[in-house]
Amino acid sequence: MGSFDVIVLGGGSAGEWVSKGLAGAGRSVALVEALRVGGECPYVACMPSKSMLRSARVRHLVSRAAGLGALSTRPDADDADLAFAAAIRRRDILAGHRDDTGAAKGVEQTGVTLLRGQGRLTRPGAMIVTDAQGNETEHTWTDLVISTGSTPVRPGIKGLDTVATWTSDQALSSPHRPASLAVLGGGPVGCELAQAYGRFGARVTLVEAADRLLAREEPSISALLARSLAADGIDLRLGTEVTRATPDGSGARLTLSPSSGSGGAPGNGLAGTSNGGPAKGAERTITVDQVLTAVGRAPATSGIGLEAVGVTPDQTGGLETDQRCRVVGHDHIWAAGDVTGIAPFTHTANYQARVITANLTGTSATADYRAIPRTVYTDPPVASVGLTQDEAQDAGMEVITAGMDLGETARSASEGETAGRLLLVADRRRGTLVGAAAIGAHADEWIGEATIAIRADVALVVLADVVHAFPTFSEVYEPPLRELAALVT
Amino acid sequence: MGSFDVIVLGGGSAGEWVSKGLAGAGRSVALVEALRVGGECPYVACMPSKSMLRSARVRHLVSRAAGLGALSTRPDADDADLAFAAAIRRRDILAGHRDDTGAAKGVEQTGVTLLRGQGRLTRPGAMIVTDAQGNETEHTWTDLVISTGSTPVRPGIKGLDTVATWTSDQALSSPHRPASLAVLGGGPVGCELAQAYGRFGARVTLVEAADRLLAREEPSISALLARSLAADGIDLRLGTEVTRATPDGSGARLTLSPSSGSGGAPGNGLAGTSNGGPAKGAERTITVDQVLTAVGRAPATSGIGLEAVGVTPDQTGGLETDQRCRVVGHDHIWAAGDVTGIAPFTHTANYQARVITANLTGTSATADYRAIPRTVYTDPPVASVGLTQDEAQDAGMEVITAGMDLGETARSASEGETAGRLLLVADRRRGTLVGAAAIGAHADEWIGEATIAIRADVALVVLADVVHAFPTFSEVYEPPLRELAALVT
Repeated sequence: MGSFDVIVLGGGSAGEWVSKGLAGAGRSVALVEALRVGGECPYVACMPSKSMLRSARVRHLVSRAAGLGALSTRPDADDADLAFAAAIRRRDILAGHRDDTGAAKGVEQTGVTLLRGQGRLTRPGAMIVTDAQGNETEHTWTDLVISTGSTPVRPGIKGLDTVATWTSDQALSSPHRPASLAVLGGGPVGCELAQAYGRFGARVTLVEAADRLLAREEPSISALLARSLAADGIDLRLGTEVTRATPDGSGARLTLSPSSGSGGAPGNGLAGTSNGGPAKGAERTITVDQVLTAVGRAPATSGIGLEAVGVTPDQTGGLETDQRCRVVGHDHIWAAGDVTGIAPFTHTANYQARVITANLTGTSATADYRAIPRTVYTDPPVASVGLTQDEAQDAGMEVITAGMDLGETARSASEGETAGRLLLVADRRRGTLVGAAAIGAHADEWIGEATIAIRADVALVVLADVVHAFPTFSEVYEPPLRELAALVT
Repeated sequence: MGSFDVIVLGGGSAGEWVSKGLAGAGRSVALVEALRVGGECPYVACMPSKSMLRSARVRHLVSRAAGLGALSTRPDADDADLAFAAAIRRRDILAGHRDDTGAAKGVEQTGVTLLRGQGRLTRPGAMIVTDAQGNETEHTWTDLVISTGSTPVRPGIKGLDTVATWTSDQALSSPHRPASLAVLGGGPVGCELAQAYGRFGARVTLVEAADRLLAREEPSISALLARSLAADGIDLRLGTEVTRATPDGSGARLTLSPSSGSGGAPGNGLAGTSNGGPAKGAERTITVDQVLTAVGRAPATSGIGLEAVGVTPDQTGGLETDQRCRVVGHDHIWAAGDVTGIAPFTHTANYQARVITANLTGTSATADYRAIPRTVYTDPPVASVGLTQDEAQDAGMEVITAGMDLGETARSASEGETAGRLLLVADRRRGTLVGAAAIGAHADEWIGEATIAIRADVALVVLADVVHAFPTFSEVYEPPLRELAALVT
């Protein structure tokens, strides 16, 4: 039994930040977490993923080293299993072997009371925490921060329960490299894991119901990513659904059909190449050692007793928050991270955590979501921020756009990294940038320029006068910005 | 004999841009160039340099591939000479084999009259061009653009004329890899070439009179670069001068002495390591196969008849220009590029060329030099923009600074690239950023954020609210920006 100024429910990125920040400011804080302090990101998501992608990227670069003038001959391909074992060893070190001892200690050292267990709200101002032994303890709070994160959506495929499936957590903690892998879902996680496993020799089939990868990004960016993944040997089945799964030895046999939701004919998303998917209306089966489901995540709001405090999730299961990150209609209930359904990234969680921390320590702060970057850490990476063309149209803006292929920059030649494109979206009436979408070498780093430009409302005429170092990839901003500036002057 | 609206003297980056731009706008334009259209950058400077640095960087990464989880074992080191030959083949392709045929055609296709030869002003409105055969032709101009670039400064070392020396042009066009190389000068060019040759197995000694590398950058950045070059096996002799050169076989013997201009004791710039240079007051000699001079460049203003039009270069030999890029005191004489002595980079030349083109085609334009990035393409790269702490102090600002080690970002761990630092310089009174200095992976790309922030005068409180994608290197901006914002609110 404890009485706290603030109870933080869920110890992922958001919960860790906000509890440490509040404790540091002298508030009495409890952090409730049943699994790991730090959440998924450090142990079974971002960090192991970025580690494997780094290993995969370097492996790919080694295969190109002679062409890049680094070696006289292509090195002998070493054993993919041994190399994968090296990648896994590195991954597991970076993921702290999925042990949160250090993170837990870090939280407690700032004065946070760490309550290990499942939290459930029982009435306004109270929560029961059930520990691993089933012991229940009630604690009280003045303010509540809900940061319970999200859980993977399980696709509704007939027979899927009868075969071995991974979620991304398992794909990022398993020591096993399947010889063949079906990735269900062409979003950020599906694309990243398809490439990571593919570059270590797994035969990867990626199945996506929409007719392109990264369905919420600009189509031109999706098309270039599809081209890159196909060049890695990944078999892309776009506009395609898995309609049935049956066991096949220790693996699975999947029946693929044209997607009912797909606008066009199924294909591999590569303009001008032959259709790699099943013919329209036809079924086809593939057999794989392992199935990975990556069809999205949903806010984790069930089973935490929200009804006891009068909070109702929205249709997606998320908690609607105001600008100050308070749950709408509740002065003392706050929410941060994936559970809000807003831009579900670690950086959004951390941002919201800072906003809440400020608001609970006497500084009024609001969250501005106009410029939250969205990044996919494939090679080349995808990075976007702000609105797409369609979203800007829908918002009633006078939309103007300009773009450029990364291959037109001098740096792309000297690096030997020519694939990529930048597309800029602006509002002609306001004369400012409202969106940017990019794919290409280090786009994850140079998207920051667009982020600042959008967040700070920098005028296009000023942006067009910004000088970029020669030769950098970021020079790709210059011609499109001059083009847009000319349209508003 | 020709009569032109504009004669552009010097066909480097600036001259190429401005002549094409003006011809495209319907002006009659002649471009006068004795050597190569495109100048040095594409053939013997930026492009071959960035190509060699890319090859060297990939070669280094291959040696780290097992540690990065990409291979199971370190690949056998291949023959350095054969690998260097591969790098040179790639370099020469990227440098177009130093053949400007394509660039010349590109210029002429826009309607520019290309005059191959040495240009010399004879009176206001006239220039004589002397071709390779010695034939002289007079041409007249209404406006003159001087874009003659710069030439390497030859260090005044006793006996240097008696030994084999390279300038950077030669180091970047030679097929030869010396077994040992003395690099005289620790500026951007010296550091880049020391690393490029060093990573292909040359034994490199870098001699710099100042007590640190990149003397105009922040000392903390210089120190980290010194650490990286030393880790590559480069023997750094800082605070050291070459006082004499004598032939030694086909190579050279150099006498090194503590630099008279150096503030402190000579050393290798690595705090906490033993002094790698000669003892104070002591002489020491080194013997090398090749000497590379890289002690700087000076504006190329002699021998072009400036006196005939009443233009006098300043003390450094440069042409003083106004905001519109006109030579001060001359309404129809313009200057762009290294010859102006302002931020001598290709991107400055191109920027000034655009300003001149606008001014000569009816749009008044001014150049803003507050945020011209300065980049050194070593591994890790160095990138800075705006003012250093000292420059901001000298400008009378109320200087506040904040910095962070790149190794504190999550991405530095997942990439295995932990060396680096960002230092931000702000003016507390105005509440804006005025300078940024960085070293670290992809700093050349993420410096763009600081560039926009400085150029667009974005308030620190807004910058501190900008969200960066997790995990990127650019997250290194966040804690220092929040620190600075807290000081102005």
